[in-house]
Amino acid sequence: MIKMQAVANLVSGGSSGPQYLTGDKSSIDAFIDKFDVFLFDCDGVLWSGDHLFPRIPETIQMLRDKHKQLVFVTNNSTKSRADYKKKFDGMGIPAHEEEVFGSSYSAAVYISRIMKLQPPKNKVFVLGESGVEQELQSEHVPFCGGTDPLLRREMLPEDFKHIADGSLLDDDVAIVLTGLDYHPSYLKYALGMAYLRRGAHFLATNTDSTLPSAGSLFPGAGATSAPLITATGQQPLALGKPSQAMMEAIEGKFRFDRKKACMVGDRLNTDIQFGVEGGLGGTLCVLTGVSKKEEFLGEGKGVVPSAYVDQLGDLLG
Amino acid sequence: MIKMQAVANLVSGGSSGPQYLTGDKSSIDAFIDKFDVFLFDCDGVLWSGDHLFPRIPETIQMLRDKHKQLVFVTNNSTKSRADYKKKFDGMGIPAHEEEVFGSSYSAAVYISRIMKLQPPKNKVFVLGESGVEQELQSEHVPFCGGTDPLLRREMLPEDFKHIADGSLLDDDVAIVLTGLDYHPSYLKYALGMAYLRRGAHFLATNTDSTLPSAGSLFPGAGATSAPLITATGQQPLALGKPSQAMMEAIEGKFRFDRKKACMVGDRLNTDIQFGVEGGLGGTLCVLTGVSKKEEFLGEGKGVVPSAYVDQLGDLLG
Repeated sequence: MIKMQAVANLVSGGSSGPQYLTGDKSSIDAFIDKFDVFLFDCDGVLWSGDHLFPRIPETIQMLRDKHKQLVFVTNNSTKSRADYKKKFDGMGIPAHEEEVFGSSYSAAVYISRIMKLQPPKNKVFVLGESGVEQELQSEHVPFCGGTDPLLRREMLPEDFKHIADGSLLDDDVAIVLTGLDYHPSYLKYALGMAYLRRGAHFLATNTDSTLPSAGSLFPGAGATSAPLITATGQQPLALGKPSQAMMEAIEGKFRFDRKKACMVGDRLNTDIQFGVEGGLGGTLCVLTGVSKKEEFLGEGKGVVPSAYVDQLGDLLG
Repeated sequence: MIKMQAVANLVSGGSSGPQYLTGDKSSIDAFIDKFDVFLFDCDGVLWSGDHLFPRIPETIQMLRDKHKQLVFVTNNSTKSRADYKKKFDGMGIPAHEEEVFGSSYSAAVYISRIMKLQPPKNKVFVLGESGVEQELQSEHVPFCGGTDPLLRREMLPEDFKHIADGSLLDDDVAIVLTGLDYHPSYLKYALGMAYLRRGAHFLATNTDSTLPSAGSLFPGAGATSAPLITATGQQPLALGKPSQAMMEAIEGKFRFDRKKACMVGDRLNTDIQFGVEGGLGGTLCVLTGVSKKEEFLGEGKGVVPSAYVDQLGDLLG
């Protein structure tokens, strides 16, 4: 934490703490001018669930008019990039599918381009929704599990036997990948545990403990991996924020100078930490989501952003 | 651990290590004579799944002939005492329902006789199977959730709203109790999380990480509580072995002298630890289950039993 604080202070220009930009037009312009690339968290920054925050389309357009490169970085594993593009369209926010970088895509890229397991022993057993499946497909990674309705059934007495003797297992599975799964089942957990005990790699799109929705908090993707962590004692490699594996994948795709990039987010322990640990030129915290300014103002605090605004639309001045 | 080791050595009669009883008739008789009460773990001791170990009914009968009090202590939360009695009958082991003490019963007793919450604000939201429900009923504790088929359905978009605004919650729920649940659902997790965030007490029948079955390991009751622990950051109070809350409940019911009682089990970190920390006069480890003798023989080991046998039937000499 001490090291992180030091890095954060360095980034924010010394120990003077984060810069408050709301209402300060000249500081806003100077801040924006420092960067070529803006990485955006989505939920809590652009919108909350289905509620769009004020002046978001205009703010995004303003950055485009200044020729900034935009990347929308989300830990939501249930949606593919194509799903996200639809959400942006529905919200009236100008965006391209190629600008979206989700944790499911990050996991698919990690599996296909970094792990590069030899076919046919490269199949992924998925605990998650269609967003994970679509992104694995886009990277030509074979998978099973996921939304297969056959796995939503009850665990039968003979399943214990057939999992124990391996006859219910797919010989080609080499990876267990968990994302947020709205359809958990004991059968899925038992299969995932059996693959892990057999030596499969354990990956997670992300391990967010909570999912903000409807103004409250619900179980996040971390709740999907938790039963497997408890049952096996193994920890997954998380491919979402704040994992730097995700930053490397983003950088590999978009090729930018980290010092000219700024991470914008609402969560200190995911978004801002992601940008600080990634050595980005700056981080901007918006107060429309999870973290409150009291968490980073004052002495002896943890992760500190370079700057903050009450809401993203304040960047319009 | 050092303290535990000291206690264990004291119990086992100094630093000479655990006594190996198999084949040593006079030592067996002397060991049995020391105790009035035998607490038995079941799975891994009497049977493994549906496989009865050799000479179990005869061994149990021999102890009855010597007028020993027997208590069958199990962490299995899916079965009630009545269910267990049926299992004993089917195996041909002489036993009475009153001699069975399961973790679901332990939890029910803890709620009704120790917590004693004021009705109607004493309802329990259950994540678990009918064993939990039956034992709550036997102690006249109101509950919801559990095997209710309505909670096995898909989480719908409006559920997020109705859980967030409280309209889907039962005002009387004051406790969330998790046992092994073969029918997990996101809806159940979301409701459990909402109750905990609202201040409900968090209890678990037990938090065993694994469930031995068919010669392999499957997710245990700990896998049911894990998503809620991850999502809320709260830890449940576990009412199964090795929690001393269970020992107190057993003692409260059977009223015996701990120094004249012996715990018999196959797992060092649950059964034997349960007996050692409970200050029982002795502990007997059987090698037909999870733990191996290498784990407690030699120097610098953790929990150590007073004595051990290859299998329980060896007590017949």
